Amino acid sequence: MDGFLSQGEHVVGVDIGGTKLMAVVYDHKFKVKGRNKRKSKSSKGEPTEERLTRTIQEALDEAHVDTIRGIGVGSPGPLDPRTGVIIDTPNLAWKNFPLAQYLKKTFKVPVVVDNDVNVGTYGEYRFGEVSDCESVLGVFPGTGIGAGIIIDRKVFYGFSGAAGEIGHMTLEVDGPYCGCGKRGCLEGLASRVAIAANVAALAARGDAPFILATCGTDLSAIRSGALADAVKAGEKMVEGVIRKAAYYVGVATGNAINILSPEAVVLGGGLVESMPELYLEEVKRGIKEHAMPFLRKNVRIVTAKLGDDAVVLGAACMIAERLGEFE
Amino acid sequence: MDGFLSQGEHVVGVDIGGTKLMAVVYDHKFKVKGRNKRKSKSSKGEPTEERLTRTIQEALDEAHVDTIRGIGVGSPGPLDPRTGVIIDTPNLAWKNFPLAQYLKKTFKVPVVVDNDVNVGTYGEYRFGEVSDCESVLGVFPGTGIGAGIIIDRKVFYGFSGAAGEIGHMTLEVDGPYCGCGKRGCLEGLASRVAIAANVAALAARGDAPFILATCGTDLSAIRSGALADAVKAGEKMVEGVIRKAAYYVGVATGNAINILSPEAVVLGGGLVESMPELYLEEVKRGIKEHAMPFLRKNVRIVTAKLGDDAVVLGAACMIAERLGEFE
Repeated sequence: MDGFLSQGEHVVGVDIGGTKLMAVVYDHKFKVKGRNKRKSKSSKGEPTEERLTRTIQEALDEAHVDTIRGIGVGSPGPLDPRTGVIIDTPNLAWKNFPLAQYLKKTFKVPVVVDNDVNVGTYGEYRFGEVSDCESVLGVFPGTGIGAGIIIDRKVFYGFSGAAGEIGHMTLEVDGPYCGCGKRGCLEGLASRVAIAANVAALAARGDAPFILATCGTDLSAIRSGALADAVKAGEKMVEGVIRKAAYYVGVATGNAINILSPEAVVLGGGLVESMPELYLEEVKRGIKEHAMPFLRKNVRIVTAKLGDDAVVLGAACMIAERLGEFE
Repeated sequence: MDGFLSQGEHVVGVDIGGTKLMAVVYDHKFKVKGRNKRKSKSSKGEPTEERLTRTIQEALDEAHVDTIRGIGVGSPGPLDPRTGVIIDTPNLAWKNFPLAQYLKKTFKVPVVVDNDVNVGTYGEYRFGEVSDCESVLGVFPGTGIGAGIIIDRKVFYGFSGAAGEIGHMTLEVDGPYCGCGKRGCLEGLASRVAIAANVAALAARGDAPFILATCGTDLSAIRSGALADAVKAGEKMVEGVIRKAAYYVGVATGNAINILSPEAVVLGGGLVESMPELYLEEVKRGIKEHAMPFLRKNVRIVTAKLGDDAVVLGAACMIAERLGEFE
């Protein structure tokens, strides 16, 4: 994983999350030279783009690096990867914000901005255990459920630029409502919010005392870690809810395998990270029961390995590989 | 649509169907010079490959052509487009039959063999109304429901070689059984067989007198044409069954749009051909209700235009374009 940068050259990978901003400075072998992070939202009303500039600058200071070749950014969407404009990110109060242009002007280097799921998939693809594959489907269940697609070793965008919307695949035509307004979407059935709603109901009626004691019945408090702890504590109904949701992710992944026929599937995100074995088991069952035998044959199904670094690494790698486009 | 062949050069396109074999000789501008067809099955037990040779030879005789540059073939699968081996085609009694090799030996020219849905999609793409698009999803509902995918102007195969298995996309986890053994597949919900089963039940209980009079209650007699006639005759419940099935095709197509983000969708096959307006209306409704607005925006949704010639034209075009690979 080198050859894109020469010795002594550096790039920065940036992860813009709903809760935190992170910037990491990498050398030509993608070794970490400096890292900085802070909360996404300022208590003093500082604009996100200024907080981001500070985060990058402080990572550069820590690395003792003053010139870089470029910056790669993974951000929540919707965004336009071709122009680097963030279309709408409610959590960060950006609306049609030209992020790539802003960072380019500030740091005087080429910048690529892409969807965090695409970037995370690319990071796991390049630096994880399926880097020998030509095509990969990355699925990241969390508050939302996103997918990134690698075809011919490159991120696949499609006509709209937004291919990979697995979260809004309809799995039950008359299923529960989803945040998008549709019914029966994968997200409506299996996101962390959907799991939390079911688990909160269990807690409210006394069937999940561990969850009730540790999180109460507020969905926002029922996070992946708490769910994993409840499973460990032996709350069987909570485990059943999580297993069913993971199975739905497997059904949707099986459907996507039938269409895309990838060589490998990488599963990441908070839910997978906190319960990798249980989660993988149910996803594999869903794939086995819903992808056609010929299409799932020899497909590798693995969990993500980079954790919080998938996006920063993927973003750094993306800009390093694409520097030629800016010359 | 020329430039692949020089003046005076010819190729043959072949369509191998469950009921008929067809071969068409094309000139360098893809103008028909000769055409021959016969039933796929011989009443005297003649092997399919020998019938196929005769069909091609008679098309050549009709065209007064004795040298050709190559042969393109569309066949029901499963088959391996890389080797041209038909893996299993129960209707034609071929099992692991090296069709490309057989035809190459017989006619001494390069041969490509591909899935009929891929070839039909390619024909509609090259010669239909969306030939200016970079990516197209072709959906062909019939006895089965197949899809062909064009990405970057080429047929997309995926890791397995069999990408585009839309017929076995699960849309209702506990839905009706499908021929593949799964439940709730698109085919189980919306194929001609699924429609026929529902319509036969209507007929059996006296709710579809036109169908009962013209087809009886045998599923194999309830074909696309009879269904279209029943709709014209005002059988509202039959129309309702067809609309619901077409809507499911729209749901599955919407899901596929969310994943693949194609620039256009082409709908073909017997059901669409016999009721294009009704069918397109329901598919568009399914897409509108299930594909995300950003992904369906500006996507063209059209019906196939080539009818029975989609496969022969697609196959002829495929071999003409790929002649360079055989030099």
